[in-house]
Amino acid sequence: MSFSPLDPQFEARVRASFARQRAMETIGATLSRVEPGVVEVALPYRADLTQQHGFLHAGIVATILDSACGYAAFSLMPPDVAVLTVEYKINLMRPAQGDSFAARARVVRAGQTITVCTGDVFAYSAASEKLVATMLATVIAVPERDGLKQ
Amino acid sequence: MSFSPLDPQFEARVRASFARQRAMETIGATLSRVEPGVVEVALPYRADLTQQHGFLHAGIVATILDSACGYAAFSLMPPDVAVLTVEYKINLMRPAQGDSFAARARVVRAGQTITVCTGDVFAYSAASEKLVATMLATVIAVPERDGLKQ
Amino acid sequence: MSFSPLDPQFEARVRASFARQRAMETIGATLSRVEPGVVEVALPYRADLTQQHGFLHAGIVATILDSACGYAAFSLMPPDVAVLTVEYKINLMRPAQGDSFAARARVVRAGQTITVCTGDVFAYSAASEKLVATMLATVIAVPERDGLKQ
Amino acid sequence: MSFSPLDPQFEARVRASFARQRAMETIGATLSRVEPGVVEVALPYRADLTQQHGFLHAGIVATILDSACGYAAFSLMPPDVAVLTVEYKINLMRPAQGDSFAARARVVRAGQTITVCTGDVFAYSAASEKLVATMLATVIAVPERDGLKQ
Repeated sequence: MSFSPLDPQFEARVRASFARQRAMETIGATLSRVEPGVVEVALPYRADLTQQHGFLHAGIVATILDSACGYAAFSLMPPDVAVLTVEYKINLMRPAQGDSFAARARVVRAGQTITVCTGDVFAYSAASEKLVATMLATVIAVPERDGLKQ
Repeated sequence: MSFSPLDPQFEARVRASFARQRAMETIGATLSRVEPGVVEVALPYRADLTQQHGFLHAGIVATILDSACGYAAFSLMPPDVAVLTVEYKINLMRPAQGDSFAARARVVRAGQTITVCTGDVFAYSAASEKLVATMLATVIAVPERDGLKQ
Repeated sequence: MSFSPLDPQFEARVRASFARQRAMETIGATLSRVEPGVVEVALPYRADLTQQHGFLHAGIVATILDSACGYAAFSLMPPDVAVLTVEYKINLMRPAQGDSFAARARVVRAGQTITVCTGDVFAYSAASEKLVATMLATVIAVPERDGLKQ
Repeated sequence: MSFSPLDPQFEARVRASFARQRAMETIGATLSRVEPGVVEVALPYRADLTQQHGFLHAGIVATILDSACGYAAFSLMPPDVAVLTVEYKINLMRPAQGDSFAARARVVRAGQTITVCTGDVFAYSAASEKLVATMLATVIAVPERDGLKQ
């Protein structure tokens, strides 16, 4: 499935908005891929983001995947709207154990108001790639207004 | 609904495990309530945990609520098991805007293997309390083993 | 939490729409309670609605709970909109075993576009009431148009 | 991704269990595909299974998709266990409008206890196939016992 962006400047818009997410900077996440309807967020392992067993905390796994889903939706929206996550569901399938992680999201259905996205988090170590989590998310486009910019 | 803990030391066990979640320390979250089947996590606002509009990032909202749900479940489990989140769903209902936040979780159904929890995040400012998010989570008890302690 | 309906005729509107849901009639479900933001659907046990163990099929459990959630949301909407379920998540916590079932839904957060509802299904037999399932649902108000009446 | 079934008789076992789901017979659903980790359920349109706009009721859409997910998981399980849906989340993305419907599910992660599945419902009319809904489900294997056969 391929999508045509409504805004030719979609990549710049996604990158500018992501750069304003201070939480992403705090945890060390970066945008590694921005295509129409597809966004990937990368995160190196950090011991200060772990749960009680030393794996990446499920909340952090969800944080990068939620961001990836939101921006995958945002990449297909017109220039004058902001994006908010309505809800998501995440299944945590394996311990988030690895040297680095990638959250890959893609749009399943882009509507005028509601966009549905799916995404996965993979954990990477020396020679392996493992599927750690999968998400199904609902994102909404809201008219941009003061205090709720992109 | 009230629950009887299987382990009289449940509170110490929950607090010890929470203390090992380095991600909680990193974001500044603390355990503010531990009762049988009920756990609350507190988080002061921090500008470095925000999304693009300056609100607390949805991922951070989910992180404290997921922890609260996991430990609510854990508080009712026997002493020799570890706890893992199988999955959760979260609805983000209002911008997470406030001076501080509280994630309150409680067990809905405690089974031998699977426990279902629900929880809410509230945002507090000068004179208001607002419901920001609600979660429905599935938690599993797994036998403790090397590398997967509580 | 109590809600004020935007449409004083909300009950008649809910009942008229429910009556058009032929699937409800087919499975034998009826509206047993309609209040602002609160709707209950009743269903007697029927052997032809079971899964492989003789319990009520999870899909049927979800069907009555989804309807209850949708109409709980609808009860608070203005007169000129239709209601659609965007998504829901359901936890099936006990076998749906009983002589009759009730799906009870209530609105958690009513927005102009998006309404969030929660609900439970209870199973009744001789002397017991058991919580069988719990749902968290997202409902959207859409302007009424030809082919998409209430 | 391809899976090796633990039970060479998996197809017969899935078909026998599905045949005991009286709800499937009641709504007219049939098993149209059974492979290791992949199950498809077919359903012709019926006016008595509709919601208030004349589309297939979301609950029925979910019912066939839940069954498809459950049996996709079941197809990979050993011979002596029963299968139960722990929970699922479904996004309803387009009106379920068509002459017939297919629910296609596949296993994402098969564990010893917990299996995660995803699936879609498609609506078919004269010349079109439309994606109507998508699900993410958690299924559990439970030891077979009296009253809880496969």
